[in-house]
Amino acid sequence: MMDVPHIGSLTAGPLGTIADVAGVTVGHCTLDEGAVQTGVTVVRPHDGDIYRSKVPAAASVINGFGKSIGLVQVDELGVLETPIALTNTFGVGTVANAQIRGAIEANPQIGRDWPTVNPLVFECNDGYLNDIQALAVQEAHYRHALQACDAGFERGSVGAGRGMSCFDMKGGIGSASRAARVAGREFMTGALVLANFGRLPMLTLGGVALGRTMSASEEQKPEQGSIIMIIATDAPLDARQLRRLSLRAAAGLARTGSVYGHGSGDIALAFTTAWTVPHLADFVAVPALVADARLDPLFQAAADSVEQAIVDALFSAEPVTGRDGNRRLSLKDMQP
Amino acid sequence: MMDVPHIGSLTAGPLGTIADVAGVTVGHCTLDEGAVQTGVTVVRPHDGDIYRSKVPAAASVINGFGKSIGLVQVDELGVLETPIALTNTFGVGTVANAQIRGAIEANPQIGRDWPTVNPLVFECNDGYLNDIQALAVQEAHYRHALQACDAGFERGSVGAGRGMSCFDMKGGIGSASRAARVAGREFMTGALVLANFGRLPMLTLGGVALGRTMSASEEQKPEQGSIIMIIATDAPLDARQLRRLSLRAAAGLARTGSVYGHGSGDIALAFTTAWTVPHLADFVAVPALVADARLDPLFQAAADSVEQAIVDALFSAEPVTGRDGNRRLSLKDMQP
Amino acid sequence: MMDVPHIGSLTAGPLGTIADVAGVTVGHCTLDEGAVQTGVTVVRPHDGDIYRSKVPAAASVINGFGKSIGLVQVDELGVLETPIALTNTFGVGTVANAQIRGAIEANPQIGRDWPTVNPLVFECNDGYLNDIQALAVQEAHYRHALQACDAGFERGSVGAGRGMSCFDMKGGIGSASRAARVAGREFMTGALVLANFGRLPMLTLGGVALGRTMSASEEQKPEQGSIIMIIATDAPLDARQLRRLSLRAAAGLARTGSVYGHGSGDIALAFTTAWTVPHLADFVAVPALVADARLDPLFQAAADSVEQAIVDALFSAEPVTGRDGNRRLSLKDMQP
Amino acid sequence: MMDVPHIGSLTAGPLGTIADVAGVTVGHCTLDEGAVQTGVTVVRPHDGDIYRSKVPAAASVINGFGKSIGLVQVDELGVLETPIALTNTFGVGTVANAQIRGAIEANPQIGRDWPTVNPLVFECNDGYLNDIQALAVQEAHYRHALQACDAGFERGSVGAGRGMSCFDMKGGIGSASRAARVAGREFMTGALVLANFGRLPMLTLGGVALGRTMSASEEQKPEQGSIIMIIATDAPLDARQLRRLSLRAAAGLARTGSVYGHGSGDIALAFTTAWTVPHLADFVAVPALVADARLDPLFQAAADSVEQAIVDALFSAEPVTGRDGNRRLSLKDMQP
Repeated sequence: MMDVPHIGSLTAGPLGTIADVAGVTVGHCTLDEGAVQTGVTVVRPHDGDIYRSKVPAAASVINGFGKSIGLVQVDELGVLETPIALTNTFGVGTVANAQIRGAIEANPQIGRDWPTVNPLVFECNDGYLNDIQALAVQEAHYRHALQACDAGFERGSVGAGRGMSCFDMKGGIGSASRAARVAGREFMTGALVLANFGRLPMLTLGGVALGRTMSASEEQKPEQGSIIMIIATDAPLDARQLRRLSLRAAAGLARTGSVYGHGSGDIALAFTTAWTVPHLADFVAVPALVADARLDPLFQAAADSVEQAIVDALFSAEPVTGRDGNRRLSLKDMQP
Repeated sequence: MMDVPHIGSLTAGPLGTIADVAGVTVGHCTLDEGAVQTGVTVVRPHDGDIYRSKVPAAASVINGFGKSIGLVQVDELGVLETPIALTNTFGVGTVANAQIRGAIEANPQIGRDWPTVNPLVFECNDGYLNDIQALAVQEAHYRHALQACDAGFERGSVGAGRGMSCFDMKGGIGSASRAARVAGREFMTGALVLANFGRLPMLTLGGVALGRTMSASEEQKPEQGSIIMIIATDAPLDARQLRRLSLRAAAGLARTGSVYGHGSGDIALAFTTAWTVPHLADFVAVPALVADARLDPLFQAAADSVEQAIVDALFSAEPVTGRDGNRRLSLKDMQP
Repeated sequence: MMDVPHIGSLTAGPLGTIADVAGVTVGHCTLDEGAVQTGVTVVRPHDGDIYRSKVPAAASVINGFGKSIGLVQVDELGVLETPIALTNTFGVGTVANAQIRGAIEANPQIGRDWPTVNPLVFECNDGYLNDIQALAVQEAHYRHALQACDAGFERGSVGAGRGMSCFDMKGGIGSASRAARVAGREFMTGALVLANFGRLPMLTLGGVALGRTMSASEEQKPEQGSIIMIIATDAPLDARQLRRLSLRAAAGLARTGSVYGHGSGDIALAFTTAWTVPHLADFVAVPALVADARLDPLFQAAADSVEQAIVDALFSAEPVTGRDGNRRLSLKDMQP
Repeated sequence: MMDVPHIGSLTAGPLGTIADVAGVTVGHCTLDEGAVQTGVTVVRPHDGDIYRSKVPAAASVINGFGKSIGLVQVDELGVLETPIALTNTFGVGTVANAQIRGAIEANPQIGRDWPTVNPLVFECNDGYLNDIQALAVQEAHYRHALQACDAGFERGSVGAGRGMSCFDMKGGIGSASRAARVAGREFMTGALVLANFGRLPMLTLGGVALGRTMSASEEQKPEQGSIIMIIATDAPLDARQLRRLSLRAAAGLARTGSVYGHGSGDIALAFTTAWTVPHLADFVAVPALVADARLDPLFQAAADSVEQAIVDALFSAEPVTGRDGNRRLSLKDMQP
């Protein structure tokens, strides 16, 4: 059995997950009942009220075959105002409702004296293993995932990753981190992915085109997958720079063998923990930002974290049997 | 009382609504129960199965303070695959669920052998008149609105427009159409708006800055509104051209006094009825498209239809009293 | 003869031009020799070295039938690093060369130890009055316009505006400003336009559809024009916010009758004088930014300044006779 | 010495260059005089008049640290109307002038009765080897490159590639092609790159992280490079689809080790030879287009062609000594 390859030359943080970016926590709610193999994962950028202390963020839609909610406003305003939720494609509406109810509960002025709240939910299609037509995800599942948020969290076939497939194997949640020095200061960058893309012949693991040898046929069935890539950093960046950072996920993703297939919703979102935007401010204080000309180490950290997080998803995943007896083996099962 | 002004020099179609574009129908489900003043409106591009016969479409986000779902995929693929739904901001998730269930019912392969379906729901914040925190919109309301779709349909304080405000008066649903000649052929373009934007001092009606005379104060409270502008045309255009067409909604909107306020989600979507994209084709037949250099009459028709549709919303609206006794008068009530 | 209408309810600055934004200056070089009726206009955001003290900026391409240079990098990095140049469509390359040589002269490290410089040149097609095929604009013309930069500057048929047409009349350079209060502080916003768009029947002046009465025919020949709209503000905004501000030019433009015709390159760029980005910094200090929720007065100021600047171009223009005896009357000549 | 690796599992066309896409030709003009080590390369999509028979095309700006001209209009209209030119960063203006003069010569109505023409020039910064401050590229050099266009053409240190560096070695022009089957039909896709990016430690060649072993130090100096990636296909696609295709260049690029460094202008443009848009049509005939759901083989072909073209540039390049004795060895020189 192959060891987990270390991607690139930067070093990981102590946890080796997105939670190495201080303040970031992750929680899961996993549904594992026969044909229902799905769930919800929440990435919480900080432990405060995110509506009142909005989080600078930006996204890159690498391939827009996706049904997320919330990106229009993130694009315009450059902030998140809810925790980030991941689930299956047909769970988006229900999880958005749960985010709305959670925000109203915390801030009853929402939709009254204050504006409404922008839910932010990403998705992949887990319909091979999960009976996605059952719309099994309920609002309570989001709340459970949110309450479970912690710096220590499981990866693999858990939460939103429960029913996901990747390279015709079991995919799911993966995470990684990288430290990078910028002008004498060290910043931590981490990634969490919901990996549900790729066909086995494409698989490239740590630069090795493993999929070609593992795959019996060269037949290329179309992807119906997707990957969501969440990048956190403690470097002081603004939304324009975070958009640049998020796009580097495309490099990490490509190095695993993806060419951003037509049917794969490949979306990356980056946020910073270095500052927040208060809901009611007249003027917003901004810290001194990393100069664009100094961003390269962070770009490298983002790309490497995303690739490492995909590798982590594959190595962490447990095999799952779901709808109609469909089964995905784990990478560990499939390797000689 | 002022007559309804005719915007521009192009002539309207026989119905004077978006339904002048042959095949397009509209339906409402209106909720009018005390503090619940809201609803759902559906625009149906054709009466077939929209998932199997996808509709070329594109959108322009003029101001992205909005919580719609579906635009990421429309942007990537240039097609709709569900009817277009409009509702209040906190109804998006539930209406998306209803669209998903409707698509699965019609095509049980969805999320199994076929890809998932992309719900498309637009919203405005009707929280002044409607108890938006109640999340009162249910999936059945979408189905009722869909079943009610007809070439003859009401405008004003109906459907998604029930609780909407516009220029501090009652807003809601408005519609209009314009015929335009392109290279010897006549094409019909129509608009339907969900008008929920503007403060009274801004109001410009048929070129007349009426709001300044109607308004007691120059005080400019911030907008918490929005406007959704749906444009239909029977001219053969592709998604790139439809994006261009959709942006002309910004001109019609500006002529009513809007400067696309920060808190107003101003989004336009244009579709064509001239061709469809079959779900399972290998190659997609495209009709001869209007040359870009001949688009100006359609641009004019789109801008004029949108402005006329906003005027129509104001003139069609009936006064509504809702949450906490909040009340919006109609334009008819307010004019001397 | 009609008086110059005052657009909107905000007040203008003392000069009534973009130079009311402190530090902004404008210079022209006008070519008026028979069939050559063209020129160069320069907008200088500050009087320092713009490569070393880069200017936060962003653009909105409202209709991309345009041949400007420099927007790709402005979009990515959110800064200008040269003065802004305006000229005719076929002068862009030469003026870009002049900007490059100017930057190298000031900073010989450019293209050696330092990166290259991003020229920024906008254009309209003045081919009706000007023999545009002559490529008459020379590098020296840019240098002359730059040297002429001053807070006091002419408008109308000067500089890049020399050969421009607008609503079938003489167009050219126009400018305006508006003061707006944001959270107790007053900010100045100004606009400079190169107005070369529109057909007479569309003309709307201060809300009055003047063109329809002035025009003998309803015939709508296609536009081959364009408009460049430069917005300056002293409000502290970042590039994301400046992009939002720049889009409000579309509202001011629409109110003059434009629907952003196919053949009209309608491009707006906004910059701030409130801060600069030093070329060699590791970290960039950013002032406290205006909160997005407080932007509406600036949006109004931008839209009104642009509309007023278009009006100013029409009222300032002198008639010009150019190529093949083609002649444009001024608005003053055409009004009864 | 390593053999040239074959990227991916698709087969190349007979020439192994972009000219395998029938009708596409390439020409160079190389300047090799002491400190002047630069040039112009032209990619000609067809041998007709490109202004009269416009070529469907679209671009992806992967990292916008670039100074190209022409992309605003390509983005809006989805067509090219000149041959594609590549040169050094400070040659863009002059080459644009040459394109304008060439178009006017062929079509004297341009800028008179017809609209102007949109020059399309891409660039990389060759300032390490070339005295870029000399602005040595003249209009005649574009004309020579255009006249030299042929299906057989050199790669490596020629044309625009003369002074380019890649992974601290000699870069330049590379090209490749791949055949791909779509729904029973075979289509040819090819790429031509101007490779001027990367630092040695990043270099990954055919999946092998060669750079780490070749490089003495882990020091990561910032990139000041760039890469232009031109993709041609004979598959019938429209501009929206070509934009999707162009983005797959990012995958090929990433697999060579790039994370799209801050200072690297990474831009891809894709065009099709399957149809053209006639300049004066009222309606534009479009062939049956490849369904989006069938695009994956073309995406693979595009990504693989781009990676192979980068490999080709490295293997084809001859060492060059230029400005101030600066010298780049070729990959052949550097490998054991």
